[in-house]
Parts: sequence; structure tokens; C-alpha cells
Amino acid sequence: MSFVFSADGHIVEPADLFTANLPKSLAFHAIRSEVRDDFRCTVSGDKIIHRMRMRPNMADMEATATRKLAPGEQPARKALGHNNIEGRLTDMRAEGIDAEIVFPSLALWTYHIEDPEAELATCQIYNDWHDAFFRAHTDVFVRCGVLPVRDLGNTALELKRLASLGFTTAMLPVVMPAGVPTYNNEVWDPVFALAAELGIVFVLHTGTGQEDVVVHRGAGGAVMNYTRQMNDGADAIMMLVAGGMLDRHRGARIACIESGASWLPAVAERMDEVYDAHYMMVRPKLDRMPSEIIRDQVACSFQYDRACIMARSVVGHQAFLWGSDYPHAEGTFPNTPFVLSKLFDGIEISEGEKADIVGLNAARLFGLKRAGLSVAGAVAA
Amino acid sequence: MSFVFSADGHIVEPADLFTANLPKSLAFHAIRSEVRDDFRCTVSGDKIIHRMRMRPNMADMEATATRKLAPGEQPARKALGHNNIEGRLTDMRAEGIDAEIVFPSLALWTYHIEDPEAELATCQIYNDWHDAFFRAHTDVFVRCGVLPVRDLGNTALELKRLASLGFTTAMLPVVMPAGVPTYNNEVWDPVFALAAELGIVFVLHTGTGQEDVVVHRGAGGAVMNYTRQMNDGADAIMMLVAGGMLDRHRGARIACIESGASWLPAVAERMDEVYDAHYMMVRPKLDRMPSEIIRDQVACSFQYDRACIMARSVVGHQAFLWGSDYPHAEGTFPNTPFVLSKLFDGIEISEGEKADIVGLNAARLFGLKRAGLSVAGAVAA
Repeated sequence: MSFVFSADGHIVEPADLFTANLPKSLAFHAIRSEVRDDFRCTVSGDKIIHRMRMRPNMADMEATATRKLAPGEQPARKALGHNNIEGRLTDMRAEGIDAEIVFPSLALWTYHIEDPEAELATCQIYNDWHDAFFRAHTDVFVRCGVLPVRDLGNTALELKRLASLGFTTAMLPVVMPAGVPTYNNEVWDPVFALAAELGIVFVLHTGTGQEDVVVHRGAGGAVMNYTRQMNDGADAIMMLVAGGMLDRHRGARIACIESGASWLPAVAERMDEVYDAHYMMVRPKLDRMPSEIIRDQVACSFQYDRACIMARSVVGHQAFLWGSDYPHAEGTFPNTPFVLSKLFDGIEISEGEKADIVGLNAARLFGLKRAGLSVAGAVAA
Repeated sequence: MSFVFSADGHIVEPADLFTANLPKSLAFHAIRSEVRDDFRCTVSGDKIIHRMRMRPNMADMEATATRKLAPGEQPARKALGHNNIEGRLTDMRAEGIDAEIVFPSLALWTYHIEDPEAELATCQIYNDWHDAFFRAHTDVFVRCGVLPVRDLGNTALELKRLASLGFTTAMLPVVMPAGVPTYNNEVWDPVFALAAELGIVFVLHTGTGQEDVVVHRGAGGAVMNYTRQMNDGADAIMMLVAGGMLDRHRGARIACIESGASWLPAVAERMDEVYDAHYMMVRPKLDRMPSEIIRDQVACSFQYDRACIMARSVVGHQAFLWGSDYPHAEGTFPNTPFVLSKLFDGIEISEGEKADIVGLNAARLFGLKRAGLSVAGAVAA
């Protein structure tokens, strides 16, 4: 197997990271996990951000063990590295994963903090902790910061600070919190210009900024709530492309993480279609067609998608990044070798493109520093 | 070229269809078009459903003439058959279209009527007019009724009446109007059971049921408002599949019209993924995987999409129906031969599958009665 880079992994921060480190005046806003009645709740201020009913078989809930396994699939097992480097490296070796980009757990909820000062402080605390945690291992782990959005001056400040620490990637919300201008608004221009200048890739992780990740509570809710997050990814990319932001800032790069990837060619095609069909009403006019902007500046991670590989010519195969979502239940752990062995079954694709999709596209986009690894230039399709 | 069936066409009803035919007690609700100030407004009751600014070059607004045409593309011209059979047949001959299913214009807005009695009467008036208009031409035009949804008893009544008139298809909204139970609610079971029994295909046309088709007014709005309708199609299919409705009623068939089609493999893949990953939380359990339910019971129309053709193996090529959207600006008129000549460029696909996608899939699904046309069974992929 070629070099495998997971474009989606999570680290669990110390439980008291924010309660212990926010200044007293902002401590009220600290993101924390609490048990209330039968629920494990994620809380900030007096807002319950997310809650999940605790069950006797909670450990199993995170597993896929209760469904019938496919021949060759392993039953779920406990991840060793959700909060430590050693266990993480052990699991990665077993999984055949050479490197990854790492996103938070608690700090995924940052965009629920409405106070700009508390939001900035939360980002800084997370980013400093994250940096210290991974700084000695940047040949394996790409660090990813979290950026505030309630005051775009703060966004620029923290972006510069991340660059000075050597970060190459930083998170923005995939769904814009209520009251914050959306990505088609020109107030974002200086932020995207700065990211392009600093060479920092913006990462939109699924679920971030969403008021409630549980949108549907009726029949089929569990399936719909995860599936529909692809729509959030699509909406964000529409804003950035149709609104002209990426066209104006050609050095800006976007990665949608864990929304799946097979919708990306569909969005590209349909934007091209209406850009022509409703041309007279289109504002702003773009220098490139929407699909070209996506080809040049957008990527998406996925765990199992195959349609995007089959239709990769629509936006180019460099737009597709495999990711494991370790250690989450909807990820590929502990079956990454099994998943990767089937990913390209029956699809006509070169070995070079396969290598790009399972690792080199992401290593290149996210700027992995690894001696001996040549990531220069995507292979021709 | 093989037999071409357009899965998306529109007829413009007489302007006074509803004002002249609704009983006096319900006339207030009549859907009608009015000029107010500089806007052409679609109105029902005291609600402006939709408005469009009138411009001196309004005729051009419907055209694509102002963008640069591709080599071989014809400039826009006025459609001859937006409200009459003769002109329609003339345009179809020029376009190389052999048959089509026909949807309304004014009656697309039916789901804005909140009064159940007025909604039912509107559907009946449209359906009777539509039937009379096309009855003598069912070898070319598949009739499609409009069903009320504010009282599901009315839905069943009108469904039976359509069947008695020989209809094989009927519209339901793709976005459920506020206050009406969504498609994952069991109150819909008798309606889907009845449709399966009567052999009537449910058609969800894009934009129907939406509170306002203009969701975005900022930069990129024109591109986003049309592109994002693919999300509405995806949401409706998630409801019907994950909620178990289609699994319980295997004879029920659904066609999403003009939302594009390339998102369908993406939705199928992602529902399969989370169905397994969150299996313990999934309710209801399904007898078939989501992608299998889609393969068996769901189809989508598109004008230009190619990603769905490349990725057709995910749900099968029978799920994809080409449509022209005649006579709308975002449709393929007057360039259908040009569009169809390029549709399969560079895609490895059998002649049989091509024939199915450009015509036979839809003729089969919608039950076109045409002497000498064999539509039995999709070709093996």
C-alpha cells in the first residue's frame, strides 16, 4: 500500500482544558462535558450544546459490533489513542495509516460561544494546547487550529498567530452561526486574502457551527442527521464559489471534512448549469466557471464514498481526500485496511491517482513536513 | 438517435383557470398572476407567492443569448408550445424529443394554499383541465396530476380519481409545507399503499412546497437558489428511505424532477454508511439497505448532469432520466440535440444504457402508452 494520510482524525482534549484555563471573567463560557440526569451533556454558559442519552451499553454504542459484519471485517474495539500520542501511533500502525490531520472534540463546539472575547480565548487555549501536544510529531500529525468568527478582526489576529507557530491549516465553521455574515459576504475578503498570503488552508469540519446536530428526531432521524450534513458542505461551497470569494482569492484553499465527497461533482455541475442558464441574473460574474474554481481550490474528505472516485473527472481527482475519522463510530477504525482494500474495486483508475486519493492529495494540501516523502504535484489523471 | 423521452416539461395553464373555475366561496384562494408595480407576481389569497422584476428585456431574460455560446449551440428562441399542442409538437420534432411528461406552471404553486378545501378544488380543476388538454395525445404526452396534501383523506380521494381517469403519475411536494407531516411520518402510509396498489408514480418537482424559491438574495444568489434545490431533493429521498416509507410499500415509486441527479448516488452511499455505523440508534430498521431501496424505487431527472452517469453503478442506471425542462430558461431548448450529443462523451457506457437514460427509463417508469415502442425491462448494466 502507498502512503496513507487520514484527512480526518480527532483528539480528545483534557476535560478541564477550558474550565481550568479561561480567565475568571470568561469562565462562564467554558466548553465542558457534564452528566445531567441520564444524559452526557456538552455545555457552554447556560446552553446545553449537545446531549446524548447514556445507556448501560454505552461502550457498544460507539461500535458497529451489533450489525452483521461483512466477511473480512473486524469487530469494533476500543481505540488506544483518543487522548495520547503513543496509543495513537500504535493504532495507526495497525491501521496502516502513515500520517493524519487532527481535529478537536470539545473545541468542535467553539462556534456556540456567542461572546467574541470568550470565543477568541477558547480558540487560543485550544490552539496552544494542540500545538504543544503535536509539535514534536509534525512528521506524522498536521496541526490544525480553530479560528474565531464573531469578530473578523480576531479571526485575522489568530490566523497570523497560527502562521507564526507554523500551522498550515485552520478551522472555520461549515454552518455559519446565526448573526455572523455568511461566506458570500465581502466582509470575509480580508480573512481569505490573509489566508492565501499565509498559505493556510481553511478546514470546514462537518457539524461545526450548526445550532443542533440533531435536526430530525422522528423515524429515520439517526440516518438523516448524519446524511444531511452533506447539504451543509454543499451550501458552504456554493457560498464560497457562487459568491465569488474563492474567485477573488485564488490562493485560498478549502477542505470540507466528513461531509462526504460524492456530492462535490454534483454541486459543481449544477452551478455551472445555472451560471449559464441564468447568466443575466448572476452577480457577481466569475472569472472561472464554478467547476473550475472547485477544481483549483476545493477538496473534500470521505470515508467510504465511491461515486466521487467514479466521477472524479468532473472536478479532478485532487479534490478527494480519504479520511478515517478515528476514533469515531462512523469512522473506519479498526477496519481501515479492509475499507481501503475495497475502495477502488471495479473502478478504472491509475495507481498514481489511487495513491493521491488515499494520501498524497491530503499530505500535499495540508503541507505535511516529512523527510523522504515526495508530494510534489498531483499525478495527471 | 434512440427514443427520446423528456422527463421534465411544463405547460402554461390559461391565466384565468382558477379565478374562473373555483366556486365563489373559494375564489379568494385562486392562484393567479398579477402585475404589481414593477413586478410580475404570482398570488393566492393575500399572499404573494413569487415575484419577478419586469425589465424592458424580459424576453431576453428567459434566454441564454447573452452569454457566450459554445461552438454548435444555437441562440435562444421563443418556444412555440408553452400553451398549445401544435407548437409543442413542432418544437419537439425540431428538438428530437419523441414524448414527454408534462407538469404545470401556475399549479406548481398549489402547496401555498393552506385551506384544504381550496387546495383540493385547485387540484381537481387543474387535473381536469390537464386531462382534457392531453387526453387525445397520450402516445406523446404522459399526463401528471397534482395531489393535495393538507388533508390526506383528500389526497387518497384525488389519487383514486386520477387512476380512474387513466393517470399513471401524480405530483406531491418535494418540500413539505409547514404544518403538514413529513414523508417519514406514518400518517402517509395509506397514501403510499394506495399509490402502490393503483400503480401511480409520485413525482416531486423541484421548488414545490417551498415557502420561497428565493432563499438567498446576496452575492451568488441566482446560482445558489437553483443549485441548492438538489438539497431539497436529497432531503425528501432521505425521509422516504430512512423513514421506512418506501421499504414498507415496495410498489411505491418516486421521481425527483429537476433537482438534478448526480447527488443521488452520494445520498445512497452516505445513508448506507451511517445505517451501518449508527446501527444501534437506527429506527426503523429496514429490510433493504438504503441504496437498494433507491435502486428499486427512486429515479431523478436531470438536464446536463454527467457525474450520475459516471457513478450509475451505485444505484443502477435505471434511476436516471434525462429531461429538457421545456420551455424554461434553465432547460435545454432549443439545444436538445446539442446537449444529448455531448451527454455521454468520454464515458464508457453501452448503447442500451444510453437509450434507457435518454428515454426508455422514463417511458417505462411513467407508463407511456405508445404502439410499437417496446419499453419492457431495463437493459442489464
